[in-house]
Amino acid sequence: MDGAHALLETLAAAGVEVCFANPGTTELPLVRALEATPGVRAILGLFEGVCTGAADGYGRMIGRPAATLLHLGPGLANGLANLHNARRAGTPVVNLVGDHATWHLGVDAPLTSDIAGLAAPVSRWVRTAASAAGLAADGADAVAAARLGGVATLIAPADCQWGDGAEPAPAPAPAVLPRVSESVVAAAADALHAGPAVLLLGDAALAADGLRAAGTVAAATGCRLVAETFPARMERGGGLPAPSRLPYVPELATAELSGAATVVLVGARSPVSFFGYPGLPSSTVPAGTAVVTLAEPGAAVTEALARLAERVGGPAASRPAVDAGPTGPTGPTGPTGPTGPTGPTAADGEVPADTQPLNPAVIGTVLAGLQPEGAIVVDEAVTTGFPYWALAADAPPHTYLSLTGGAIGQGLPAAAGAAVACPDRKVIAFQADGSGMYTLQALWTQAREALDVLTLICANRSYQILRTELGRAGGSSPGPVASGLTDLGRPDLDWVALAAGMGVPGERATTAGELTAALRRALAEPGPRLVEMVL
Amino acid sequence: MDGAHALLETLAAAGVEVCFANPGTTELPLVRALEATPGVRAILGLFEGVCTGAADGYGRMIGRPAATLLHLGPGLANGLANLHNARRAGTPVVNLVGDHATWHLGVDAPLTSDIAGLAAPVSRWVRTAASAAGLAADGADAVAAARLGGVATLIAPADCQWGDGAEPAPAPAPAVLPRVSESVVAAAADALHAGPAVLLLGDAALAADGLRAAGTVAAATGCRLVAETFPARMERGGGLPAPSRLPYVPELATAELSGAATVVLVGARSPVSFFGYPGLPSSTVPAGTAVVTLAEPGAAVTEALARLAERVGGPAASRPAVDAGPTGPTGPTGPTGPTGPTGPTAADGEVPADTQPLNPAVIGTVLAGLQPEGAIVVDEAVTTGFPYWALAADAPPHTYLSLTGGAIGQGLPAAAGAAVACPDRKVIAFQADGSGMYTLQALWTQAREALDVLTLICANRSYQILRTELGRAGGSSPGPVASGLTDLGRPDLDWVALAAGMGVPGERATTAGELTAALRRALAEPGPRLVEMVL
Repeated sequence: MDGAHALLETLAAAGVEVCFANPGTTELPLVRALEATPGVRAILGLFEGVCTGAADGYGRMIGRPAATLLHLGPGLANGLANLHNARRAGTPVVNLVGDHATWHLGVDAPLTSDIAGLAAPVSRWVRTAASAAGLAADGADAVAAARLGGVATLIAPADCQWGDGAEPAPAPAPAVLPRVSESVVAAAADALHAGPAVLLLGDAALAADGLRAAGTVAAATGCRLVAETFPARMERGGGLPAPSRLPYVPELATAELSGAATVVLVGARSPVSFFGYPGLPSSTVPAGTAVVTLAEPGAAVTEALARLAERVGGPAASRPAVDAGPTGPTGPTGPTGPTGPTGPTAADGEVPADTQPLNPAVIGTVLAGLQPEGAIVVDEAVTTGFPYWALAADAPPHTYLSLTGGAIGQGLPAAAGAAVACPDRKVIAFQADGSGMYTLQALWTQAREALDVLTLICANRSYQILRTELGRAGGSSPGPVASGLTDLGRPDLDWVALAAGMGVPGERATTAGELTAALRRALAEPGPRLVEMVL
Repeated sequence: MDGAHALLETLAAAGVEVCFANPGTTELPLVRALEATPGVRAILGLFEGVCTGAADGYGRMIGRPAATLLHLGPGLANGLANLHNARRAGTPVVNLVGDHATWHLGVDAPLTSDIAGLAAPVSRWVRTAASAAGLAADGADAVAAARLGGVATLIAPADCQWGDGAEPAPAPAPAVLPRVSESVVAAAADALHAGPAVLLLGDAALAADGLRAAGTVAAATGCRLVAETFPARMERGGGLPAPSRLPYVPELATAELSGAATVVLVGARSPVSFFGYPGLPSSTVPAGTAVVTLAEPGAAVTEALARLAERVGGPAASRPAVDAGPTGPTGPTGPTGPTGPTGPTAADGEVPADTQPLNPAVIGTVLAGLQPEGAIVVDEAVTTGFPYWALAADAPPHTYLSLTGGAIGQGLPAAAGAAVACPDRKVIAFQADGSGMYTLQALWTQAREALDVLTLICANRSYQILRTELGRAGGSSPGPVASGLTDLGRPDLDWVALAAGMGVPGERATTAGELTAALRRALAEPGPRLVEMVL
């Protein structure tokens, strides 16, 4: 058996079921191995950022790594931005990159580059295979590394793929997430009892079990629950505890945390400003507020939180059996929250008039009011999305994925990957236009794979967040150059045409009534579909 | 003055006239500085690969660097593939990348990454600015480095941009290309006299002066002229010496060089197979054939070639005055070849019937027969483009740019950059569909800037080169997985719709007659326009 076949068999046996691929000549032995390994589904992306973003969305939803398959250094380069997001999300990804045959590297052919050097900044683990016989074991090690949360990059020279004498490798080690010591749990409990506190939740603390345990802690101690600003995955609605969200704007983040004597970190990092601003500190924790870590991201977060709940007096029943991995124990089949009455929809009492032009609040109201139970909402709506989050707190149970690393162009690919992971759930890609243009090729993959994705384009026709940031700095209004660099018009993008060009049917909405009708139509049918929401 | 303004003034004074930009928050001081520096034209790309590819096309045509402006590590990552191509082309590029304020890096905010690490594989020079006062001098050093041919990456932390107390820096050092010693010229002359030889031409040897000098050498010694496989820029037609082209397929490349006792490298590297194949050597130089280097890429190639021409008996008049830099002395205003009668067009006597379906030969014949004098042909047509090259040898004088580094997605952006550099010339983007999808956002920039680009999409709806490579390896025909990963159909892309979505008018052609009519229409008007050629 050649190295490529041994690798694919090993990956399949380790639970890698999907390969998001854009191969080239140096990866053809792996393409042949995919042909012979029906347990691994090959899905083509027409740009590598689609493949890596899809692997991120898939891994967040299913809790196991997908593989990518990328062509040499430039193919990896095209996928790096979404690997950056996956790294920040702690998503398990086995990132396969082909390379020239080992004996061909010395002549520095045109496509030769420092692949390991390119991979290092986004990877928790990087290895270049040294032989065909070792490639499968390298793959098992890559799976083991990815299971700890993050990107494991395996570089496979072509001769290690096509060389014979290989056999599948033993199963990779299961992930053992670092367990939080009892003294750390005790210190967190002490902090909660000592005075007003905030539990800042991230990672698996935002899964259903984690949220319930956090709710128990809050009920017992009076602490407030706050979600990190950009969660990798969060279960929402359906009566789950509904933390507030730490705002993006640093002054507002600090205000949100003010009044707390202690911020207890539960799977979240100590909060910092997204960017550095003159005269503002990097940390958004108010001066004088203590920070106590219960669990780092990637640790056994839910288990630690359950022990904290017990210690502060919560019921033992809130303790989950086990931490299942970086994306928490909620599998791909749906949120596990109660599915009973979810209370009034966010739109109740504030339904916008049909003729009202679209704005972020109107869009948020309509979407939160219509999104179906079990929806997966992939939010890269940026400024247009800000009102939606609060409005959706009482929506039917759903899963929320956000842009963890700030590298725009994640939403459309991640939605594709989430739909591959969860074919029985409606995926809603809530997508800013400027960010969507980065990886619009994902629409084609959605069409080819008949993925049930509804893409909602927020067509404000600008990099609105940059306009806001320009305004932050004060001074005169932007001149023609700054306007031109933050304006997506002249000409306006026509997203309905772009979608049609890739086989996705679409329509355009400019008012609340049009959007409501378009959403009803689109939600009634399987995707992919697209609605361009013109603000 | 702040660091950003000092940097922009320095760049403008050094001849940087264009900045292909996709800035974010950390680059806003540089956006404000662009506002205040009218000598540097800011051009927005909706994806960073558009910006870097445009800088490559621009630099190849104008011989001076454009600047880019990219947002942090992920923005750089999105631009790396086309910087890889620029590196292989030796194109001067000043690659500006913003970073967080220096004091904000330690908190590892979501967008933080190892920017210098990402830049290193594609850059001949990388520096992270350390202060506002030093930023302008860093920029001058970047220009000096870029002038030697390649990518100079300057990372500008936000506080170095907004910090005060800066002044513009002195002008950067002019490029002094390494001069070839007389003994090397003599050795090359000896080799040419000793037996049958090939002059393998690259870099400035493919500019008009270089080609004329090479033609003189060939006339005096009987050597054959062969162009490297993927030239960064080559002047063609109008009676210029017309070298053959070293084939892409390694066996054919070796055959092309067979019969030569010596291959003399003139601005070209010793030829190697694009990929390594089992049982084939990396070098495509036939066994027993000597390789002699007259001039490395990046050296004073034209001057060395002129001295070689003199030494082997060519007329002194063939010697150009000076080497003007990595892209040769032909400026942006047009090819400098004779503009007299260009002989029969390639299509003469073999005009395809109007009803003939499109194939690579038909497309090549129609295009070579209709392309106007002074055209700039950006060739990323891959397999569809193979017949065109020979057919265009007798076309009116034109400039030919190719994909130097194999990182697909270069054509549409490079065409945009070439059109910015040469607004009075028609740019023809001869573009494969699979490759075009990588950076289709370039069409929008072409529309916004009203660039005179005619994009010809070769819609064979497959990664045809991979199918060829799959066939090379023999064995059974591709199964459904390999077919699926090399097939761009299901659904077919509709390039006319994609272009319309970005403001570029287009039409579709399926026969020779339709293509001829479409090209005549499109060439009669300023661009941008697009023709989808369905094969």
